[in-house]
Amino acid sequence: MEKLIKQVEFLKEIDKIKGIMRQTLVLEGERQENDAEHSWHMAMTAMTLKEYFPEEVNMERVLKMILIHDIVEIYAGDTPCFGAPNPNKFEEELASAEKVFSLLPEAQKKELMEIWMEFEEVNTPEARFANLCDRFQGFLQNITSDGHTWKKYSVTLEKVEHRMKPVADWAPRLYEDVMMPEIRRYIERGIIKE
Amino acid sequence: MEKLIKQVEFLKEIDKIKGIMRQTLVLEGERQENDAEHSWHMAMTAMTLKEYFPEEVNMERVLKMILIHDIVEIYAGDTPCFGAPNPNKFEEELASAEKVFSLLPEAQKKELMEIWMEFEEVNTPEARFANLCDRFQGFLQNITSDGHTWKKYSVTLEKVEHRMKPVADWAPRLYEDVMMPEIRRYIERGIIKE
Repeated sequence: MEKLIKQVEFLKEIDKIKGIMRQTLVLEGERQENDAEHSWHMAMTAMTLKEYFPEEVNMERVLKMILIHDIVEIYAGDTPCFGAPNPNKFEEELASAEKVFSLLPEAQKKELMEIWMEFEEVNTPEARFANLCDRFQGFLQNITSDGHTWKKYSVTLEKVEHRMKPVADWAPRLYEDVMMPEIRRYIERGIIKE
Repeated sequence: MEKLIKQVEFLKEIDKIKGIMRQTLVLEGERQENDAEHSWHMAMTAMTLKEYFPEEVNMERVLKMILIHDIVEIYAGDTPCFGAPNPNKFEEELASAEKVFSLLPEAQKKELMEIWMEFEEVNTPEARFANLCDRFQGFLQNITSDGHTWKKYSVTLEKVEHRMKPVADWAPRLYEDVMMPEIRRYIERGIIKE
């Protein structure tokens, strides 16, 4: 009974992720996206584009990893990817992970901590695929909002290439056939600076 | 290449789910919840509470089913569960499913149509579990917003019991230990009418 109460408290607490806002825009630029929406869309990206990632993955683990990867931002907040880097990001997110997953019974806390660490360390096929879906979903929100975050942070090609490196390295067809033509268009328009 | 373009168009189109609003409130009553947030939270409910559903399930399929179950509302809209019933709901959602999943290559369209139909027909353990998570998540948003939709629609106990029957039937501990005490509290306060 106490176990179930903890699990329900966890489910209530993570409602807060719906209020954690990202820099990306949704609905053709209408408003900022929140972390719950981002995680859902990123999971749909994984389901839809798996064939372009050449490694075998356990899709159940990929989906779980995606669903929980940003829960730590409930307390740590979102770090805009083109903004000033936060040197304490990992420590803050780790403390946040400890805090939020500790609401759960011990075995579940351990499981979710492990999945979250796996996403952060990027040493398994599942973590590589989840990370590239993260980048790809952010890219999609940019090209459906006329390059909103690229404009906002006056990005250079170098910055965009660095950010999208997981896609270029691990799912090259997605990079070459979807991203490269779009990046070229935004360079021509002077939005991404060479 | 054409295949990949279709898949990316699908991923862009389903951004619209972030604008499909439900009657439930999030963030302690601050605003309405949208379908992307609901689907994410429902997937987290499945991950967290699996042990209370006695049947064996393929969790990958459960998560996929949950992630896509409301995409049809992009064109069909949300039908408030305590509002006037829409006698054409299934036909409208089926047409919507055809429309949105047809953006995908044929094999993927077929896969997602099948998963969506399985959710609607509720004849497999995966569909039973996904459906009860749907009800449970809606219940949670109600008890974190002081019974918002129960007040709005002046619900009777009979209506709430009918709505929550999948939980009572298929995960009785969740019903008895989490829902019943809350329902009793809302009856005492006169919000749920006996």
